[in-house]
Amino acid sequence: MEMKLPGQEGFEASSAPRNIPSGELDSNPDPGTSPSPDGPSDTESKELGVPKDPLLFIQLNELLGWPQALEWRETGSSSASLLLDMGEMPPITLSTHLHHRWVLFEEKLEVTAGRWSAPHVPTLALPSLQKLRSLLAEGLVLLDCPAQSLLELVEQVTRVESLSPELRGQLQALLLQRPQHYNQTTGTRPCWGSTHPRKASDNEEAPLRQQCQNPLRQKLPPGAEAGTVLAGELGFLVQPLGAFVRLRDPVVLGSLTEVSLPSRFFCLLLGPRMLGKGYHEMGRAAAVLLSDPQFQWSVRRASNLHDLLAALDAFLEEVTVLPPGRWDPTARIPPPKCLPSQHKRLPSQQREIRGPAVPRLTSAEDRHHHGPHAPSPELQRTGRLFGGLIQDVRRKVPWYPSDFLDALHLQCFSAVLYIYLATVTNAITFGGLLGDATDGAQGVLESFLGTAVAGAAFCLMAGQPLTILSSTGPVLVFERLLFSFSRDYSLDYLPFRLWVGIWVATFCLVLVATEASVLVRYFTRFTEEGFCALISLIFIYDAVGKMLNLTHTYPIQKPGSSAYGCLCQYPGPGGNESQWIRTRPKDRDNIVSMDLGLINASLLPPPECTRQGGHPRGPGCHTVPDIAFFSLLLFLTSFFFAMALKCVKTSRFFPSVVRKGLSDFSSVLAILLGCGLDAFLGLATPKLMVPREFKPTLPGRGWLVSPFGANPWWWSVAAALPALLLSILIFMDQQITAVILNRVEYRLQKGAGFHLDLFCVAVLMLLTSALGLPWYVSATVISLAHMDSLRRESRACVPGECPNFLGIREQRLTGLVVFILTGASIFLAPVLKFIPMPVLYGIFLYMGVAALSSIQFTKRVKLLLMPAKHQPDLLLLRHVPLTRVHLFTAIQLACLGLLWIIKSTPAAIIFPLMLLGLVGVRKALERVFLPQELLWLDELMPEEERSIPGKGLEPERSFSGSDSEDSELMYQPKAPEINISVN
Amino acid sequence: MEMKLPGQEGFEASSAPRNIPSGELDSNPDPGTSPSPDGPSDTESKELGVPKDPLLFIQLNELLGWPQALEWRETGSSSASLLLDMGEMPPITLSTHLHHRWVLFEEKLEVTAGRWSAPHVPTLALPSLQKLRSLLAEGLVLLDCPAQSLLELVEQVTRVESLSPELRGQLQALLLQRPQHYNQTTGTRPCWGSTHPRKASDNEEAPLRQQCQNPLRQKLPPGAEAGTVLAGELGFLVQPLGAFVRLRDPVVLGSLTEVSLPSRFFCLLLGPRMLGKGYHEMGRAAAVLLSDPQFQWSVRRASNLHDLLAALDAFLEEVTVLPPGRWDPTARIPPPKCLPSQHKRLPSQQREIRGPAVPRLTSAEDRHHHGPHAPSPELQRTGRLFGGLIQDVRRKVPWYPSDFLDALHLQCFSAVLYIYLATVTNAITFGGLLGDATDGAQGVLESFLGTAVAGAAFCLMAGQPLTILSSTGPVLVFERLLFSFSRDYSLDYLPFRLWVGIWVATFCLVLVATEASVLVRYFTRFTEEGFCALISLIFIYDAVGKMLNLTHTYPIQKPGSSAYGCLCQYPGPGGNESQWIRTRPKDRDNIVSMDLGLINASLLPPPECTRQGGHPRGPGCHTVPDIAFFSLLLFLTSFFFAMALKCVKTSRFFPSVVRKGLSDFSSVLAILLGCGLDAFLGLATPKLMVPREFKPTLPGRGWLVSPFGANPWWWSVAAALPALLLSILIFMDQQITAVILNRVEYRLQKGAGFHLDLFCVAVLMLLTSALGLPWYVSATVISLAHMDSLRRESRACVPGECPNFLGIREQRLTGLVVFILTGASIFLAPVLKFIPMPVLYGIFLYMGVAALSSIQFTKRVKLLLMPAKHQPDLLLLRHVPLTRVHLFTAIQLACLGLLWIIKSTPAAIIFPLMLLGLVGVRKALERVFLPQELLWLDELMPEEERSIPGKGLEPERSFSGSDSEDSELMYQPKAPEINISVN
Repeated sequence: MEMKLPGQEGFEASSAPRNIPSGELDSNPDPGTSPSPDGPSDTESKELGVPKDPLLFIQLNELLGWPQALEWRETGSSSASLLLDMGEMPPITLSTHLHHRWVLFEEKLEVTAGRWSAPHVPTLALPSLQKLRSLLAEGLVLLDCPAQSLLELVEQVTRVESLSPELRGQLQALLLQRPQHYNQTTGTRPCWGSTHPRKASDNEEAPLRQQCQNPLRQKLPPGAEAGTVLAGELGFLVQPLGAFVRLRDPVVLGSLTEVSLPSRFFCLLLGPRMLGKGYHEMGRAAAVLLSDPQFQWSVRRASNLHDLLAALDAFLEEVTVLPPGRWDPTARIPPPKCLPSQHKRLPSQQREIRGPAVPRLTSAEDRHHHGPHAPSPELQRTGRLFGGLIQDVRRKVPWYPSDFLDALHLQCFSAVLYIYLATVTNAITFGGLLGDATDGAQGVLESFLGTAVAGAAFCLMAGQPLTILSSTGPVLVFERLLFSFSRDYSLDYLPFRLWVGIWVATFCLVLVATEASVLVRYFTRFTEEGFCALISLIFIYDAVGKMLNLTHTYPIQKPGSSAYGCLCQYPGPGGNESQWIRTRPKDRDNIVSMDLGLINASLLPPPECTRQGGHPRGPGCHTVPDIAFFSLLLFLTSFFFAMALKCVKTSRFFPSVVRKGLSDFSSVLAILLGCGLDAFLGLATPKLMVPREFKPTLPGRGWLVSPFGANPWWWSVAAALPALLLSILIFMDQQITAVILNRVEYRLQKGAGFHLDLFCVAVLMLLTSALGLPWYVSATVISLAHMDSLRRESRACVPGECPNFLGIREQRLTGLVVFILTGASIFLAPVLKFIPMPVLYGIFLYMGVAALSSIQFTKRVKLLLMPAKHQPDLLLLRHVPLTRVHLFTAIQLACLGLLWIIKSTPAAIIFPLMLLGLVGVRKALERVFLPQELLWLDELMPEEERSIPGKGLEPERSFSGSDSEDSELMYQPKAPEINISVN
Repeated sequence: MEMKLPGQEGFEASSAPRNIPSGELDSNPDPGTSPSPDGPSDTESKELGVPKDPLLFIQLNELLGWPQALEWRETGSSSASLLLDMGEMPPITLSTHLHHRWVLFEEKLEVTAGRWSAPHVPTLALPSLQKLRSLLAEGLVLLDCPAQSLLELVEQVTRVESLSPELRGQLQALLLQRPQHYNQTTGTRPCWGSTHPRKASDNEEAPLRQQCQNPLRQKLPPGAEAGTVLAGELGFLVQPLGAFVRLRDPVVLGSLTEVSLPSRFFCLLLGPRMLGKGYHEMGRAAAVLLSDPQFQWSVRRASNLHDLLAALDAFLEEVTVLPPGRWDPTARIPPPKCLPSQHKRLPSQQREIRGPAVPRLTSAEDRHHHGPHAPSPELQRTGRLFGGLIQDVRRKVPWYPSDFLDALHLQCFSAVLYIYLATVTNAITFGGLLGDATDGAQGVLESFLGTAVAGAAFCLMAGQPLTILSSTGPVLVFERLLFSFSRDYSLDYLPFRLWVGIWVATFCLVLVATEASVLVRYFTRFTEEGFCALISLIFIYDAVGKMLNLTHTYPIQKPGSSAYGCLCQYPGPGGNESQWIRTRPKDRDNIVSMDLGLINASLLPPPECTRQGGHPRGPGCHTVPDIAFFSLLLFLTSFFFAMALKCVKTSRFFPSVVRKGLSDFSSVLAILLGCGLDAFLGLATPKLMVPREFKPTLPGRGWLVSPFGANPWWWSVAAALPALLLSILIFMDQQITAVILNRVEYRLQKGAGFHLDLFCVAVLMLLTSALGLPWYVSATVISLAHMDSLRRESRACVPGECPNFLGIREQRLTGLVVFILTGASIFLAPVLKFIPMPVLYGIFLYMGVAALSSIQFTKRVKLLLMPAKHQPDLLLLRHVPLTRVHLFTAIQLACLGLLWIIKSTPAAIIFPLMLLGLVGVRKALERVFLPQELLWLDELMPEEERSIPGKGLEPERSFSGSDSEDSELMYQPKAPEINISVN
């Protein structure tokens, strides 16, 4: 489950109280200057009250001098018009073309293809940087130039001694020419590659119009400034001419820039002809320099040439060098997923300015990637009875009004639609499966009703109202076991279940009172993944098992088998077959309804036969042909279709909205496809069981479950034992999910409520047990999807940059509306009886496979099958010997095998206890593995964290030697990758 | 189809007469020196008679000085033993660790993981290179040092003035210590990360043993030399100590290097403590420098410090620079697929040395990626009748004996096995489909016999004996059309077909006589892909159509349908049903065989019923249940399984041999899986039709077809018309395949024989028509697979390098043996009747889909569905506007649509003429597209090539402006990506 899209927003300022590094582009519209370079620590700079530097858009205009211009003219380009404009000096005609541009990364105009390249990391040749340095050192440097227009600027930069007056005039005329920009929106080919010469008049008006329409403009935040580099060879110049200008006030320099932005920097690099592409490359070097945040920071504050050169030298100190023989210098490097921290690059005096913020940032980053079990303040033990609960309530109450007001945003509508569909799909699937597993003690109707009641109540009361309550895999597995247990002892299931529910609620209250939720830190990834893997495997096993069961219900007719033929026999009065009266004389050839002489039989199909009062007799009567294979086809189709749709998200096809839609609604679409296929062929496949009217699925029971059915009284006490097991399960499922949902990387503002959430679950447990509805806990996947659909993101992201995550719309309304809609959907029930069961089994299999493939354990199992040479370059493998990784995986596999064996015995119901036992196994692993190995393979338990010196600051440094490469860990995004419960 | 594996070979020298750039590592074992740096132009350097420089293995040994050694000791590492060895000077104890090594790319030891990283492009910090330069400038440079041992070497390098005698002694003792190397073969963790200290004695013996076992040793070619860099901080030094040594004669310096190689270079970089990792990074910089071929070339020839520094400066001139803010300097860049040409980097004086070779190389490179239609000398018109054929025979005759002798290699055995299996699979699939399409006029038996006879004859006679003859898609499609044509006119098929064959042979002879094969250059990619796409689509359509036909033969029983019930009725004497005599009195309850009173009927299944002399009566008698869906399952299973196995090749799982096996035999394995599934369930699915004995599939005909069957005589003349169409098809199929197979990149030595091949095909056409066997032409895919399995490759490839392609074992024996085995496999025929037809349809679909997805046209169709932002960075898209690309694709789609419409009309049989019409359409496209666009989208036709100035040298430069990035085209490998005929 990835957190991406769809919530996008204007340039909202993030007011997150925690220090999380974010992308470089921020939303601050203030174009003022400050002593802080832009960088990932922008949140921080705002905290210190200093506005950051505006974003800089840089472009390189290339001057194509005399000989080239002639060439262009020959190919029919528009420079012909330029020639007309300045007819008095034909030999020095030139045209200006924009070929490269930068915001964060470089984009190059593919001239013949007429489009901007994908953004890529710029690569430079070292000599061009050095040549640039010497040109600037000898050239003109104007800092805080007061020019107010392009004309003034051009006059200023050409006021150098080396130019004769006539040369200066020519040069000024050239520089004042309007450059040609390629406009992407028109979709046509740029004029200079075209075979059809354009009219001069087009050329005159186009640039200004283009500037407004330019799609790049919308991607740049307000307050962005421009920097222009003009480079090129001019045959008439005798010596190179370099000028670097920082304007005092940013000025819009006519159509000099592609995007109409006020220019802050202007760099001119001209000279006589040179071998190679000297000036072009120097121009690129200047632009890359300007696009570097550190250089920009320095040069905005430079007071003389010396400062400028010092900034250039500082840049050179930090560049990465690739050897020529091993790297193609023209290869385009895609933008890295995470940029290196600018913080590390700060010169010491800057670092001092920010002072105390630094350690805070580091520790936040640290907590950030040490995952779900970093101790959040909500998980501190108070030591008083119900202390945690009381604190939770105190924390949440002040936010309560805003929990409704914050929902007033268009984005919440689309979130409701998405989560409603997901919830209904879940209700159908789990309802169908529960009905299947409990012989109708629960069913789809109960599932709809329960989801609506429990979900809505939770949204109103809970500590984390973004959580979506659902039947989850572990609870489903337990309920199935509980049902077969009660059947083994011939118990009346629902009353017994009610007592289990009462006991579970009691135990959960005890857990709330004792603040047991803080123990959740002992559930490391080892436990979580074992939990998830077991439930996923049960799902897969059950789905395949149920499918195969269908082939017993609807057997396949083999050619040799005797299960062939079926007669419809009518009971003769007194059993004497020969006395049967011919009720309907028919023509002889209609053999189907033909009565077969004296034996009182016809060949009518069994249902028709029964309706006419006969008995179908014969081995073939119970065989419905084709159902088994068709069910298998439906099963496979829905499974593969759902899997394929899920993968659409990462494909290159379709716009991202369509991709996201297809992938988000993969289950719904797969169910619809299955139903369509089934309806198209019209075969009698087994369908979802839905009662005809609004009453419980189990015939003959009311909505309220009586506490003492047919069971002896002492079973209400004995129910405490299974209830203990279920409590463990519920506690693990609920709290692990809650920790994942409340991770720091989601930047939740209103705080979590672990104790309050568990309290609500306990209360709802009572309610649903009394009504005979399914049991509910927080569901990881759907809750994450809920949060994902409420993401606030910066709308503007410059080429090569990912949208900036600003936070989540925390409110109670979307959830509430979703569950009200779910409740209203009970009237959908009559439609649901068209859903074939094999389709649901396919979705069941899909859920199991999807959950299993999301965990790191699966990745490590795959490593077992890969030769070391082909293994991906995982950080894990860089730090832990392969044999140790395999050993860890093997131990996990062994634990899973043991759990599976227990699950297959009659004692299956105790499996929650064994899941808890994984915590013990994990503890024992400390004796087998070194702490630094466990840090990479798992996470650390609370005691271990304390045992490692210096862990609080830079955990990876202290183990892995003195290698700077390990700091790469810092740049790894921590995605919420674990689907702990299958749903 | 990619050309990779499995032929590997020792260090054979390539004696290719053409100049093809190859990888850097060559097989030349001569370690002498020469005036040519190693680089892709090694073939060339050999031609000039100068041996190239040996390969250099470089390693960086890091000296961990006093404080670190203490740290290591504290963690229990083995440096404790070092402390004992040199007890007299505890404060300066140090241990040497190898952390990085280079051959072409850098490998880093992951210390805690205890394994070498994947090879990656080294990245350096610029300051470390500059610091290295100044250290070397001030330090000791010994060129052609005569030292014969490590002791002598150490004495030489420590003989500097700045060291006091006692310091010198300490330093010498330190440098003579045995360094610790990590040995990958042991699989254990390296000793210095271990928690269990090793015994000192282990430590003493280990290095030498490790050196021999080192797996890297086997990857280095004979004659490789070593370079060692020793870097580190030594607290007792007062000032830095730098030394660079080139040994006059390479000497094995004990266990200084990980791999036991004679050392040529030795670099010492020591100094007092420094902030950061100064010496480590300087050491890396020195090693990267040494690993650069150009630097190496220079430094091997340097005569003084000045030369050395000049080489370093030349290196700096060429480095690529990445800006710090946009690139994480610690990210590992995987080795590029193609290294930049070293040739471009040659300094001018070196370039002059090689003189005339340069233009030849360029033009060969050019031809190389301008694909299949570059004019090979074999395709020059002689202008005489049969001139081309005579030349072909003259060219091939001298090679004839060697065509058998060259096959004496173990690799040929595995090639025979692989191609035999592929041929038999093809014979079964195409035989089965032909039998299906022609109502048994051809069949599997004919397919086996024909393949064996035609294939073996071709291998003995042909110009290109590597070609595998097979029934190909186009011919199959035509034969199907011809059959339905003959049925429409109630013709006796085989005699008519014989006349078609006679005419085709005649036309082909005319084509040979007039040297028409040279026209093949007019078939550009546009034509080839149209051809391939049409045939693939027909395959896909037919496969799905045949599958759906099965559901008509075996209808699905819907619940409402009346097709239910079947009685077995026995004919009573005189038709009076009531007089039937009870032959077998049975117990009443066995309703199956129970006779139903007086109506003479039972419920026996139809086959049993017929055997007992009854008639099955009733609507359900012809229904075989479950067959339709099971066939569909078999069809889908074999299709998806074959597709999945094909993809295994590029997965990360399993060793590459297993992967290649699974992917090569994907069809065979899919057929086997389908048969297994079918046999497991034992349903009466339709099976492959195989005659019981060795006689033609069509009952009642002999092996020889009589020329005048039941047809009127004038049909033998009229057959010329379809024969003309078939001739076009055969010519296109045969010649396009031949051009692909004879591409320059395969470096075939013995030349092609286009005219001879066509002549052979014509003769075999006569033979197979007369015997009523399928028709055969060269098959692209299987022939490429044949060549692929006969690749000669350099066995040794250093980390990060792909194996070097040396050529192909050109001989006639493997093909001959394959076809003899195929002939012998006719006795397999009885087994073949277990193959279900749906499985073959699935393979049929797989072949169509695989062929369709291999062409560029499909990639461009996919582009239509991708938003511009997500499109891959194809070179095509960099140079042609997207709208023009889409226009080209749309025109292709329109042509294909037109062809499809023709194919669907009764005039379908004229489709070969329309395929030829594609050449005309392509010619007309010249009016729509610019030549440079067609160059990227297609290829140029002969006239166009002439029309473009300068194309012969650097085609892409002349169009795409002055951008060096376009030279990337040079590095794009041209893979033989087109499967022109589906087979």
